[in-house]
Amino acid sequence: MRVVRSVAELDLSGDVGLVPTMGALHAGHRALFRAARAESETVVASLFVNPAQFDDADDLAAYPRDEAADAAIAEAEGVDVLFAPSREELYPAGFGTWVDVDDTGAEGAARPGHFRGVATVCVKLFNVVRPHRAYFGQKDAQQVAVIRRVVRDLNLGVDIRVVATVRDTDGLAFSSRNTRLSTEGRERALVLPRALAAGADAFTRGADAVRTALDTFNGVVPDYVEVVELGDTTLLAAAVTVDNVRLIDNVLLKGSLS
Amino acid sequence: MRVVRSVAELDLSGDVGLVPTMGALHAGHRALFRAARAESETVVASLFVNPAQFDDADDLAAYPRDEAADAAIAEAEGVDVLFAPSREELYPAGFGTWVDVDDTGAEGAARPGHFRGVATVCVKLFNVVRPHRAYFGQKDAQQVAVIRRVVRDLNLGVDIRVVATVRDTDGLAFSSRNTRLSTEGRERALVLPRALAAGADAFTRGADAVRTALDTFNGVVPDYVEVVELGDTTLLAAAVTVDNVRLIDNVLLKGSLS
Repeated sequence: MRVVRSVAELDLSGDVGLVPTMGALHAGHRALFRAARAESETVVASLFVNPAQFDDADDLAAYPRDEAADAAIAEAEGVDVLFAPSREELYPAGFGTWVDVDDTGAEGAARPGHFRGVATVCVKLFNVVRPHRAYFGQKDAQQVAVIRRVVRDLNLGVDIRVVATVRDTDGLAFSSRNTRLSTEGRERALVLPRALAAGADAFTRGADAVRTALDTFNGVVPDYVEVVELGDTTLLAAAVTVDNVRLIDNVLLKGSLS
Repeated sequence: MRVVRSVAELDLSGDVGLVPTMGALHAGHRALFRAARAESETVVASLFVNPAQFDDADDLAAYPRDEAADAAIAEAEGVDVLFAPSREELYPAGFGTWVDVDDTGAEGAARPGHFRGVATVCVKLFNVVRPHRAYFGQKDAQQVAVIRRVVRDLNLGVDIRVVATVRDTDGLAFSSRNTRLSTEGRERALVLPRALAAGADAFTRGADAVRTALDTFNGVVPDYVEVVELGDTTLLAAAVTVDNVRLIDNVLLKGSLS
């Protein structure tokens, strides 16, 4: 596996699959690498904690970083190129161009500026790597919806693939943020997948998915619970903050991701 | 010359030079086509009156359109592909992604939203055509400064070439808007190149270029007179509105365009 730190060194050609990551790689990322490996000549993983998508400096500072561990995981999953640029490489002095997306849903409303940062760095990564396909996890469904819109609107010509959420044995979706939960906090966080499962179950019985999920949160107040349309697919999405850690998750209501 | 109306039909490869235009082609565009022809395997001209860069619906409606005349000029100058998409092709229903640039100078301040529209359509055209070089006129120097910033910040990898302003025998820079001037208005409009020339002349004598230009406007009130840095080049730029037609122009103070 080649580790590349500058845009100039990248020099890619042929059929490329890109997995954009912020590092702190876990089983969810492994699933993305495997999906990319199965259908790409060259698999590129980017490793960049994107300051532009954090509205909160403390959240950015607390974001876990361990490049050696991440490189070992990427290599083990068959990644060919690990693109790990510095902050200055992607945001040089005088940087001042932003990709703004209208109507970014509940996750966008809850985190002002977040999707601007996501959209901007994705456009940059797509232009630098020129991938044929890019891989995202279903857990970040609203991010996927925003990126698909940007790809269509700006004619980026990248196929956005969505890989099913990977869950730990207790049902919590793998997330780089989970390492910041206390044992007790993790126990409380399980209300998120449980409420979503209850909402999905209610939906199949013709009941109100959002109301059922909200009721199931009993006591814990979610940041939002909302129905998200992702192409022909409908998801029930929610966010909750536990131990000052903001967790998101979603489940399928209608359609499928492929 | 091939006329193409959809992104799907474009199907370009090899070394491409792009001249983005809003039609109403004149001697200034001819100079851009010749510059592109001299160094490109395939010359693409785009012909699209971009609604997103007009803040004023009347200005958009009044913008001159004559595709048959434009096609004849493009063909005569050796353009290989004329890309003339419909409004719906570039801005389909539900479009909602914008490229926003910080600090766009006096021209940006005078026309809110203008450079957002310019930056967005240029990113789209660059992604669709994937040119190696794109050609712009010096007259639109502030637009060039914005586009160079977008290209750098979003890693677009397009070389932005600037071609010297072409002037009519009376000194007025060629512009698609000139056709909307009355005979008397055109006479008054000549204060714009004269004031800029006086400013440049003052600059070479060590005097204040902006103040001299402002003094030379005697009676006519310019929208702005400002010094613009374009890479290593310094320009004196101004705008003036005559007969409800907004005209811009600039002259070199330091450095050169190439």
